[in-house]
Amino acid sequence: MTRVAFLGPPGTFTEEALLTQPDLAAAELVALRTMPDVLTATTAGDVDYGFVAMENAIDGTVNESLDSLVFEQDDLLIQREVVIGVHLNLLAPPGTSLADVRQVVSFPKAVAQCRLFLASQLPEAEVVAANSTAEAVRQVGEGHEPGTAAVGTALAAKLYGLDVLAGDIEDHPDNATRFVLVSRGHIPAPTGHDKTSIVCFQRSDHPGSLHAILGQFSARAINLTKLESRPTKKGLGDYCFIIDLEGHVADEVIADCLRDLHAQLAGVKFLGSYPAAGEHGAAIRRDADAAWRAADEWVTTLRERVGR
Amino acid sequence: MTRVAFLGPPGTFTEEALLTQPDLAAAELVALRTMPDVLTATTAGDVDYGFVAMENAIDGTVNESLDSLVFEQDDLLIQREVVIGVHLNLLAPPGTSLADVRQVVSFPKAVAQCRLFLASQLPEAEVVAANSTAEAVRQVGEGHEPGTAAVGTALAAKLYGLDVLAGDIEDHPDNATRFVLVSRGHIPAPTGHDKTSIVCFQRSDHPGSLHAILGQFSARAINLTKLESRPTKKGLGDYCFIIDLEGHVADEVIADCLRDLHAQLAGVKFLGSYPAAGEHGAAIRRDADAAWRAADEWVTTLRERVGR
Amino acid sequence: MTRVAFLGPPGTFTEEALLTQPDLAAAELVALRTMPDVLTATTAGDVDYGFVAMENAIDGTVNESLDSLVFEQDDLLIQREVVIGVHLNLLAPPGTSLADVRQVVSFPKAVAQCRLFLASQLPEAEVVAANSTAEAVRQVGEGHEPGTAAVGTALAAKLYGLDVLAGDIEDHPDNATRFVLVSRGHIPAPTGHDKTSIVCFQRSDHPGSLHAILGQFSARAINLTKLESRPTKKGLGDYCFIIDLEGHVADEVIADCLRDLHAQLAGVKFLGSYPAAGEHGAAIRRDADAAWRAADEWVTTLRERVGR
Amino acid sequence: MTRVAFLGPPGTFTEEALLTQPDLAAAELVALRTMPDVLTATTAGDVDYGFVAMENAIDGTVNESLDSLVFEQDDLLIQREVVIGVHLNLLAPPGTSLADVRQVVSFPKAVAQCRLFLASQLPEAEVVAANSTAEAVRQVGEGHEPGTAAVGTALAAKLYGLDVLAGDIEDHPDNATRFVLVSRGHIPAPTGHDKTSIVCFQRSDHPGSLHAILGQFSARAINLTKLESRPTKKGLGDYCFIIDLEGHVADEVIADCLRDLHAQLAGVKFLGSYPAAGEHGAAIRRDADAAWRAADEWVTTLRERVGR
Repeated sequence: MTRVAFLGPPGTFTEEALLTQPDLAAAELVALRTMPDVLTATTAGDVDYGFVAMENAIDGTVNESLDSLVFEQDDLLIQREVVIGVHLNLLAPPGTSLADVRQVVSFPKAVAQCRLFLASQLPEAEVVAANSTAEAVRQVGEGHEPGTAAVGTALAAKLYGLDVLAGDIEDHPDNATRFVLVSRGHIPAPTGHDKTSIVCFQRSDHPGSLHAILGQFSARAINLTKLESRPTKKGLGDYCFIIDLEGHVADEVIADCLRDLHAQLAGVKFLGSYPAAGEHGAAIRRDADAAWRAADEWVTTLRERVGR
Repeated sequence: MTRVAFLGPPGTFTEEALLTQPDLAAAELVALRTMPDVLTATTAGDVDYGFVAMENAIDGTVNESLDSLVFEQDDLLIQREVVIGVHLNLLAPPGTSLADVRQVVSFPKAVAQCRLFLASQLPEAEVVAANSTAEAVRQVGEGHEPGTAAVGTALAAKLYGLDVLAGDIEDHPDNATRFVLVSRGHIPAPTGHDKTSIVCFQRSDHPGSLHAILGQFSARAINLTKLESRPTKKGLGDYCFIIDLEGHVADEVIADCLRDLHAQLAGVKFLGSYPAAGEHGAAIRRDADAAWRAADEWVTTLRERVGR
Repeated sequence: MTRVAFLGPPGTFTEEALLTQPDLAAAELVALRTMPDVLTATTAGDVDYGFVAMENAIDGTVNESLDSLVFEQDDLLIQREVVIGVHLNLLAPPGTSLADVRQVVSFPKAVAQCRLFLASQLPEAEVVAANSTAEAVRQVGEGHEPGTAAVGTALAAKLYGLDVLAGDIEDHPDNATRFVLVSRGHIPAPTGHDKTSIVCFQRSDHPGSLHAILGQFSARAINLTKLESRPTKKGLGDYCFIIDLEGHVADEVIADCLRDLHAQLAGVKFLGSYPAAGEHGAAIRRDADAAWRAADEWVTTLRERVGR
Repeated sequence: MTRVAFLGPPGTFTEEALLTQPDLAAAELVALRTMPDVLTATTAGDVDYGFVAMENAIDGTVNESLDSLVFEQDDLLIQREVVIGVHLNLLAPPGTSLADVRQVVSFPKAVAQCRLFLASQLPEAEVVAANSTAEAVRQVGEGHEPGTAAVGTALAAKLYGLDVLAGDIEDHPDNATRFVLVSRGHIPAPTGHDKTSIVCFQRSDHPGSLHAILGQFSARAINLTKLESRPTKKGLGDYCFIIDLEGHVADEVIADCLRDLHAQLAGVKFLGSYPAAGEHGAAIRRDADAAWRAADEWVTTLRERVGR
């Protein structure tokens, strides 16, 4: 049976996202303690797939996942991305009212995302850190301490016997998180609606180097959906760039762009070509754009005139 | 007396960094609970200065500080930057040996930075989250639980009565953190060795927009020391760019660059022009570079020929 | 009395253009045989000003003038530009009809500009080259050969006793030629409606060098009104670039751009800053553009906050 | 028999260049009066090939050829380029000595290329224009006027019975001219050592448009061997750009670049892909460059992992 690792304990956002995918929901799910553990287990072959959060619309990149994928894993390829809305709830043992709450336990990033609710409704409550939202819910569920509450998912509330004291308490109602499924092995076939993720390492820190990298994309009108600088862990000011772009390595224009980047940079790490989530962008620019189709026909006609 | 707010409780890395600055060490120090609290108190005039971490060489941007500075504060200007090496220690109540340790308490980012030490020396220990390294040290110091240890600073060990079980346990010995001092009010006068920090908001998410922004710097040979993309909290894929560059708004070339960025972008937020930390770069390119000095003389000579 | 050299003999287009300028028309006019002669006489101080054609809307750059200005003269600065419409006429001795014409004498460029007229009306006529249109008219005027005609100006027809057989015979009725007045000495004061002309010499012939030059202008939104590549006479494929841009060396943005070009290139030759001809562009972008004015105010406000 | 048109009369530089090509030398040669005539005859099918000068190392583009090719012909493709050194001679009837020469007849561009010789050796001689160097030699050869000389080729001297009074009188001994052979029909197959010629028409005259065009090449590290701006004959300041680049439309990288240019610009005219002249550049960058070969292997390996 296919085995899929994810960030546990049961009841995390990650599990919520994973369960939206019928094929993954049918697999054997393996809860691990950290996102780097999930990726390392996948590299080692202990599981077939790993499923980790990559980016949050409010909080930005999930550094633990990204750094492990970029700096610690070598053979993993992204197979799919999954984007789900983030909804946070204040959860407490049955019988607790909002006025009773003296202590709120949660993952610091989750607390940061409902700062306004906590400041207005529970200005006196002590905030206590936990390793994940599910961990927080489990602690509160198992602790039976009066006056404690957790910030977490509805799924976790069910698992650990808590009630929802207040729902959708997040500051930004449009908040969303992007997850990726990784495995060793193949690159998914192009669907006409794909993304490619790469990491670009600069040859040296001179002005204009990122400018030159971006020139490769803008010259080819390749759309970027994400650009993230990350320290290379070699000293302040030494960055690499994580880039998500529209298109698949099987597309000529993407292949040619990757060739040029590889030839010019200190390094390019390929993280995968995979179907893009969502409805938006049912096709990449090139198929949708009349000007580009006309250009393509022009070049095709020219090339038919090449003698042998 | 001058009042300076910082991230407490006493014993944090932030306090260690602050105490390296004699004028700040002589001020009244005000420990606040979060970095946004420090910035908000400075904006409100409750303190004269705020001192917060901005960036770590291993872990990247300190999102809490940066997001608050970019999105929540309006009148703060960076006055100074301070860079110090990061050294982490395993701290425990007197009499504890490494073999006794069953539980390690700390700020998750600190734990992340000594993952290799913990994996090899304490593979069985449970990791427990705290709100800061100093908080962790205080918990262990006040808890008197046998078998508990904290990851934190030597300063905190002294404050809370712990011994150093193992020193310099961080994975990357060259790790460093950059802090900034902010206040309302003036821009420090240029020293010939300055940085300027800005935030650029794109007019729209089309390919080439960051490319165009960077073209402004590369055309003028302005060196960038930091480039960071951050979500604008309006949805996945909507970014602004935090940029540190060499030079001062009082320099003509920087002023002209800022004018063009402001005219072309949806928004530019000015975070300050201030003396750069460290010995490196005793002057910006323009004074040091013979070709540029020759160019400057040429233009000066030309302009002397302009009639009236 | 002020002396102005121009391309003779009397009756050339150059003289027509020169006479549109009242101050020059009142000066002592000195007709010389070639455009390089005009420029060399100005450099030598034999005359106070030289007046030469630089560019034609149909035919492009006037290479003789441009090459002499770029490669042979060192101290000349453009003082003014003059643009006039070009109208060509078929001229012949009184009594000649179109059917009589067996031979057409003219400057080859003038012949090229009324090729359609000659092909349809005089398909059998022999075309004979002369050194200038005025020279052609003089030859026909003094030769008294039946069946000969010249292509030239109405001014020359009067001077040499010919009639206009057919007027405005040029193929492109909107044709225009741009002339410049040069002298040693000062740069005219800025008028708010100026152009600057420079020559950029590449450091080496690698891909991207002109791209980098143009990046200097586009980053600053400096408008180019002319871009011309010319061989440097060192071998096929070795070019310099003659560039006209909007603005004056007294403008900060232009000065800064010139500094960067000078510092980065093998050479930059300054040909002048001078009032632009015509009504179009009553001011450069920067004064006219609300976004840029707002940007300028923003930077000015920032700089007022710089301490001392 | 294959018919090749060229600029006559016999004895022109063009014929000299043409005779260096054995296959063309064996064809039926058709001397026409102007370079546009040569191109028009080729378009009309009156001849199989046309052979015209395109560019001179000292004098730059041959505007008559280029403008006709760009603006007047639609179906011609460059098949080959030929580069030959330019050597000019002073030719006179047998028995003439240098001291006898009172008048020098030639094509104005040829006269311009030996200005230094004429100024030092024949400062008093009158210069008379002719339609080509061969025409000048023929005039002098048939005129039998004492004291007349022509500037022209050794081939013409033989044809019209003149002696070489002084050889290699050109100012720049490394002068060279580039010719092209054009025909309707096929694009020559790639040889691994090819050039492609195109004309780019801007969509509008805004700052940065040529910058964007050149970005297409520099992003792909495509080397340009020629860049020429030419007026579009629609008014001063309205240019198109004639570009020669290394590579063949059959190369993926060139095809992709042409597609993007075509999609973004008002127009792109394809003038041909053809073998480059000379020994230099035995292969384009991509085959010669280790970094690029490594990049290509990397992409190939990636693409082999794409599933179906």
